[in-house]
Amino acid sequence: MDGTQVFLRARVQTSRAQGSKMVFFNLRQRIDSVQALLTVSPEKVSKQMAKWAAGLAMESIVLVEGTVKKTPEPIKSATVSDVEIHISQIHLESGLETVLPFSVEDATRPEADIEAAEDVQFKRVLLDTRLNNRVVDLRTTTNQAVFKLQHAICGQFREYLEAKDFTEIHTPKLQGAATESGASVFKVSYFKGSAFLAQSPQLAKQMAIAADFERVYEIGPVFRAEDSNTHRHMTEFIGLDLEMAIDEHYHEVLELLDGLFIHMFRSLKQKFAKEIETVRRQFPADEFKWREGPEGTLKLSFAEAVDLLVKDGVPREDLDDINTENEKRLGRIVRAKYDTDYFIIDKFPMALRPFYTMPDPDDPTLSNSYDFFMRGEEILSGAQRVHDPALLAEQMRAKGVDPATMGPYLDAFKLGCPPHGGGGIGLERVLMLFLKLNNIRRASLFPRDPKRLEP
Amino acid sequence: MDGTQVFLRARVQTSRAQGSKMVFFNLRQRIDSVQALLTVSPEKVSKQMAKWAAGLAMESIVLVEGTVKKTPEPIKSATVSDVEIHISQIHLESGLETVLPFSVEDATRPEADIEAAEDVQFKRVLLDTRLNNRVVDLRTTTNQAVFKLQHAICGQFREYLEAKDFTEIHTPKLQGAATESGASVFKVSYFKGSAFLAQSPQLAKQMAIAADFERVYEIGPVFRAEDSNTHRHMTEFIGLDLEMAIDEHYHEVLELLDGLFIHMFRSLKQKFAKEIETVRRQFPADEFKWREGPEGTLKLSFAEAVDLLVKDGVPREDLDDINTENEKRLGRIVRAKYDTDYFIIDKFPMALRPFYTMPDPDDPTLSNSYDFFMRGEEILSGAQRVHDPALLAEQMRAKGVDPATMGPYLDAFKLGCPPHGGGGIGLERVLMLFLKLNNIRRASLFPRDPKRLEP
Repeated sequence: MDGTQVFLRARVQTSRAQGSKMVFFNLRQRIDSVQALLTVSPEKVSKQMAKWAAGLAMESIVLVEGTVKKTPEPIKSATVSDVEIHISQIHLESGLETVLPFSVEDATRPEADIEAAEDVQFKRVLLDTRLNNRVVDLRTTTNQAVFKLQHAICGQFREYLEAKDFTEIHTPKLQGAATESGASVFKVSYFKGSAFLAQSPQLAKQMAIAADFERVYEIGPVFRAEDSNTHRHMTEFIGLDLEMAIDEHYHEVLELLDGLFIHMFRSLKQKFAKEIETVRRQFPADEFKWREGPEGTLKLSFAEAVDLLVKDGVPREDLDDINTENEKRLGRIVRAKYDTDYFIIDKFPMALRPFYTMPDPDDPTLSNSYDFFMRGEEILSGAQRVHDPALLAEQMRAKGVDPATMGPYLDAFKLGCPPHGGGGIGLERVLMLFLKLNNIRRASLFPRDPKRLEP
Repeated sequence: MDGTQVFLRARVQTSRAQGSKMVFFNLRQRIDSVQALLTVSPEKVSKQMAKWAAGLAMESIVLVEGTVKKTPEPIKSATVSDVEIHISQIHLESGLETVLPFSVEDATRPEADIEAAEDVQFKRVLLDTRLNNRVVDLRTTTNQAVFKLQHAICGQFREYLEAKDFTEIHTPKLQGAATESGASVFKVSYFKGSAFLAQSPQLAKQMAIAADFERVYEIGPVFRAEDSNTHRHMTEFIGLDLEMAIDEHYHEVLELLDGLFIHMFRSLKQKFAKEIETVRRQFPADEFKWREGPEGTLKLSFAEAVDLLVKDGVPREDLDDINTENEKRLGRIVRAKYDTDYFIIDKFPMALRPFYTMPDPDDPTLSNSYDFFMRGEEILSGAQRVHDPALLAEQMRAKGVDPATMGPYLDAFKLGCPPHGGGGIGLERVLMLFLKLNNIRRASLFPRDPKRLEP
């Protein structure tokens, strides 16, 4: 590289004049930054030019021509540490016409550095400030890497399923009735009537199975009108959904889903090490662990998971369901005992699952359903579904859903449907937990929650 | 194949007993169908068994075991015409518990066959009946092929853009303000306030460019609250959107988009000939034509397009804009003169384009914007966008949009943004026009229009 001429478009992350003859820049391009140097020299760079360049606002976009030079000492402030650019020409392509809400340098600094700093007072950029000014926040090398990884997860999801003959479908987000559970559904004014936003593609993807698509997947927004402002809930997120006909047993779906996650984890680790490392500089985390080898992924039944918690001191009477707090606790128990951040719970009690869940044929109080976990948080929920219309109507009534309000859905099964199962993955949860970002909003480009609809 | 043992799951499309000893089936699996034969034979197939099988309802799902046999004569009623299956075992996996609204055989029949039939009265299945019973309608070999092609178009869109370093993004569909043009936006009850459904990812994808993503694409639903029930409008459809920074000229975007379509057309023709042929059996159409070779895709300026129409007899005073009828006429003129179903119109008058469109620097009454056409209908609209915040605010005011209502969007440009452009493609339109399906609802799994929210 040494001696190569380069021409690039970059952001001015910082600029600093040294005397009147030299200006140092930190130039940023997505997940990389490099030091660049403008030196006054006769006939090439005038003093006025250097003065103008030193005054360029942070976050200006510049077009730079220069020569790559090896540096004697590694440059710590840039991701490219072994070379710098000696600038011969610099042009401003886009300047700033407002006050920067915070510097990208501040926004990229790890929390530990802020706490450890004794002589300097580093500015802490709070999450709300970041999200209010998301366009600047997204420019950090960290966020550029986060969203490259989000892209990668979607890509791997597709790659794996396409190799297994799945068809991508697009199901409508506007629904005529408030499906599944009416309480958490957004209502839309629809000409002279109303519509509702789909809170999952569940019913539509099952109808696709009844329509002979055999194996389908969808990547699309799902909407939840839940007024909860936790670190892991948003009102709009991206669902990675799939549904497939099964031959003999619902474990066919379970195994396929498990294979999908293993494929994702391996690909991320192998192909995106640089991006993971970039994120880790700002968000230090233990490397995400899963089990490879013949033993395979840890699968616990719901009953076994409860036993683990009881043994750890949770009163059994609190464990009709496993709440968020106990999920996290279970994650810690499993990590300590089995050395994995990824595991599956199978065979949930029927009482905890929606009406379309297939009961366990051997014990109707249980169901053929499962959740997948990463670092003690649920990232997938799935099950075998009921394909028998009589049983489906019965389970609707048992769960307080009037079959009459679900006509077209119920009809799909009356028209003949193979046994099938599937699951829905929360994209942002997988991304947040793989990277340990601690708040799901960091895993969404422009997050939406009960209090946020902008930008 | 002759003599091979097979085991398959299939739909009973038709069954017909011949005497008391033989039953003929037409068994269907997605885009294929095959003849199968059950014959009474001692110790293997009883008379009762044959009687039961002959009585299986159309659209039952059966599991069949049998032997493949070459047939002396081609079987015209099946897509697999050179073999049939001699059934040794047949089991019912899922029966029918309602009356079939129409037979899949009727739903697959070409219009021409219905009109040509003299001695039989074929049943015509109207579009509304199909859509009301979409699960059955989707089972036709035609529709299985249509949605495999829809999947292929999305796949090719991604494949082309990923090879060119685009990042897939997911932008929120819930918006705090009614963007672009308030008239055609759906309003959502959002806790104690209101939200609006995004009518395109336009603003968000531009903000991603201002956030240094350089090249982005999105595949997702877009919502239009337009009360129009034409053959080419839906209230929800899938947008294939992209946006990219440009170096010198907006023709970089135009050329990339053109390359994308050529890639799509070629891949569809080369890799999906069987699916196209399957659709064509029911919807006969001239093969879709585009220009290959050094001359490249036909590009007309708006002024040239108007001239062609005027020369064809349209009064020039009707051509401040080119309406749907004249678009179709232009499509016919172009087809006759240039032998192509695919062309581009560039340089639309500024008056016809939204506020974020970049004016032509040489003639501010014109703009750096373009539409792409297939068979005389628009399938893409795009432009270079204004990245200068002062000009953007000025154009907002000129188009009656108050800049104060677009704060976060306008801020993105004040914070420095490279020149950029992009476009949005209607997935279902491309599919409809490539295959000449004549109604966009046929290109959508579960279409939505002002009168339809179910199934």
